[in-house]
Amino acid sequence: MSPAQLRQAFDSDAIRAGRGVRRALGAAVRGAVRAGRLAPGTRLPSSRRLAADLGLARNTVADAYADLVAEGCLTARRGSGTRVADTMTILPILARSIAEPSGAPGYDLIPGHPDLTAFPRAAWLKATRRALAAAPDDALGYGDPRGRPELRAALADHLARARGVYVSPEHILICAGVSDGLRILSRVLAGRGARNVAVEAYGPRSYSALLAGAGLKTIPLPLDTHGTDPVPPDGTDAVLLTPAHQFPVGTALRRDRRTALVDWARQTGGLVLEDDYDGEFRFGRQSVGALQGLAPDCVVYLGTASNTLAPGLRLAWMALPPTLVEETVAAKGHVDSCEVVSQLTMAEFVASGAYGRHIRAARRRYRDRRDALVAALAQYAPQVHLIGTAAGLHAVLALPPGTEQQVLRSATREGLKVAGLSRYRNESSPYAMADALVVGYGVPSDAAWPQALSALVQALS
Amino acid sequence: MSPAQLRQAFDSDAIRAGRGVRRALGAAVRGAVRAGRLAPGTRLPSSRRLAADLGLARNTVADAYADLVAEGCLTARRGSGTRVADTMTILPILARSIAEPSGAPGYDLIPGHPDLTAFPRAAWLKATRRALAAAPDDALGYGDPRGRPELRAALADHLARARGVYVSPEHILICAGVSDGLRILSRVLAGRGARNVAVEAYGPRSYSALLAGAGLKTIPLPLDTHGTDPVPPDGTDAVLLTPAHQFPVGTALRRDRRTALVDWARQTGGLVLEDDYDGEFRFGRQSVGALQGLAPDCVVYLGTASNTLAPGLRLAWMALPPTLVEETVAAKGHVDSCEVVSQLTMAEFVASGAYGRHIRAARRRYRDRRDALVAALAQYAPQVHLIGTAAGLHAVLALPPGTEQQVLRSATREGLKVAGLSRYRNESSPYAMADALVVGYGVPSDAAWPQALSALVQALS
Repeated sequence: MSPAQLRQAFDSDAIRAGRGVRRALGAAVRGAVRAGRLAPGTRLPSSRRLAADLGLARNTVADAYADLVAEGCLTARRGSGTRVADTMTILPILARSIAEPSGAPGYDLIPGHPDLTAFPRAAWLKATRRALAAAPDDALGYGDPRGRPELRAALADHLARARGVYVSPEHILICAGVSDGLRILSRVLAGRGARNVAVEAYGPRSYSALLAGAGLKTIPLPLDTHGTDPVPPDGTDAVLLTPAHQFPVGTALRRDRRTALVDWARQTGGLVLEDDYDGEFRFGRQSVGALQGLAPDCVVYLGTASNTLAPGLRLAWMALPPTLVEETVAAKGHVDSCEVVSQLTMAEFVASGAYGRHIRAARRRYRDRRDALVAALAQYAPQVHLIGTAAGLHAVLALPPGTEQQVLRSATREGLKVAGLSRYRNESSPYAMADALVVGYGVPSDAAWPQALSALVQALS
Repeated sequence: MSPAQLRQAFDSDAIRAGRGVRRALGAAVRGAVRAGRLAPGTRLPSSRRLAADLGLARNTVADAYADLVAEGCLTARRGSGTRVADTMTILPILARSIAEPSGAPGYDLIPGHPDLTAFPRAAWLKATRRALAAAPDDALGYGDPRGRPELRAALADHLARARGVYVSPEHILICAGVSDGLRILSRVLAGRGARNVAVEAYGPRSYSALLAGAGLKTIPLPLDTHGTDPVPPDGTDAVLLTPAHQFPVGTALRRDRRTALVDWARQTGGLVLEDDYDGEFRFGRQSVGALQGLAPDCVVYLGTASNTLAPGLRLAWMALPPTLVEETVAAKGHVDSCEVVSQLTMAEFVASGAYGRHIRAARRRYRDRRDALVAALAQYAPQVHLIGTAAGLHAVLALPPGTEQQVLRSATREGLKVAGLSRYRNESSPYAMADALVVGYGVPSDAAWPQALSALVQALS
């Protein structure tokens, strides 16, 4: 590396670093060594010569050399001058650009994701401004392992009104998503000596892996035309299910089955884990409250901002039976692992009513999409029978028997990302439903939805 | 519960809920049941009568009843009317107020925490505004498990300049604090069959517990007058240490020991975990670059915003050897568990230069406090010898032998929260230093620091 090259690297670095020439020169030399432009053992120009070449004070160069010697990048021996240390290896460095997945044209109809173009950026920023203005200084430190009290208080209130959840802020625990919550609860269960967790015949496959990570075995629950039969076999320690809107089938857990499940829990001491992933989005007049409201002493309620706002917020919450709080805090590791500014922002967003307004607007948007889906299929694909359209961000399209794979191929040709129902089947379950697609209508923007729907109709015909 | 009471509960609920009278009525009845004001089995007024009492349409009341019957809170049988379900139990609900720890007057001098009154709220909000305006929609979704690319790119740049870290953004992984990073790395090590991790004779006790959680045994490293001797015994798989500023002793790892440690890692295939918890805060002219810059192929660098900004951000980062990235992503669970708006904000904060400015201001602030501490002790407590004052947010005060407990008691009397050095000693280490206090000067505000210092001097005299 010539002094001219070094000067060039150094000049641009000096401008950007803003930390003075000494540090910038050090960074330039280090970079040259790392990139292989100065090989191990290479003797550097004397500080006097380099200072003259670069137009710097000699002390500045000598100081930069000394920094690099102290960190081991250079060696300085009497009589041998300053050299690149032999221990310095050249590491191939990758290009700075992170490869993005190649953006194939098309529409994403995979369920479980909201419309991110509708994230209320302005309202969220406003809530952040208010939250940052109001927060006490110590809110920014290491906090209560359950999460910020402001958020737990706001959620206790909101969940009581919107979902019939009956919980004190003391018994709410904030977590970084429903998966994070389930991971924590798995540890709680394992710590209690639990072995078997009953799950629905259809559901997110990742949950079984997650439970298995804590040494828990999953047992599939029976499925019939009314949905999941939730009372598990003997020897079951907990039941994990989606009472408001079965994922992905779409049924709501019937009243008699709710009662039977609570009876089971009370009689056996078992625990019910209620995954209320999209309970805010019910379109009809009939609301379906949370199962937790029936039996707060034996149901853990899990809710999330991933579907109402955005998965990137990594905000979810558990309403815990009081007796479970201490163990759950311990399983969380006695620290609040969730970012505090977003917790404070969410608290302000909920308490100010902005969250309620946002949910109502989103509900109208998704209901309109659902209506368009129902109408389009009735007109253009009458062979398809729709299931689970009373709520949520997806519907199940029951197909003529034996056509699932063929429709999936057609959908791919139309540029659609769409999932077959079989993808969600618990592999160990003896219960299997007929061929079907699971169509998420959450992801496309309002502008893109008509074309996405048209491509879907095309794939089905 | 009389209709008048119900009406009262219902009115206030209706106002706040904003979801219509049907939902508000449901919430009021549910709340009355939960609070024990309507006992299980109690027969409710007919929908016709209650509607008349409350001045509502009969259908609204009937719909609300139907909602509660569907969720299992009420039962409706022909001839028996609508009753509170027998399964409904009354749960004692705690007061909404979260008890705060009683604020004893005094000053917190526990090390490892920054001055939260100096968190740059306005600059952070500005960065959030810019970040939210610039972020693509899909940034709000489920992201790259390594963390947002914007943040990884900004950090790679910053770390190269500020700490001599040599890393590509591809090989950075964002995590929710150094503890979270260590937890992930423990899993990586355990997954590779590692058993023994060498740690410093003094350090945060929680780290040993954290490594033990993955089945790893900690072996204490020797300690001499020059600080930690980092070359571990045979059979060691990894070395965890604080090269820039030993926590809490305060020494910087010497050059020859850096080289020896890298040689050990290269020869044995061992891994070095560099905890650079306060490397940004060095006060003298001599900078101490990260060990990682010497050997990016066998050192994992861990940095954090907890000391430079605030622990509540739950933002930390690892610079990984390229060969370790895949396993570490897997150990993190293949998801980005860190909140995305704060990641985007931090990226903007770093890239705009605001982070550098904030660190320089904080460095001046902490240096001034360090200077005041040195001057005060020289004048008023000459028997105390100061160690580790070249950097960081704390210093070690070597005390006359046998006086640590007595000084701690005096400090408590003066209203100081302060830690003895023995608190940080690895219990299995044969190496022990003489009596000393570890004094963190990060926590008190600029306004409170003079009084805190005066109380400290008082406790020492």
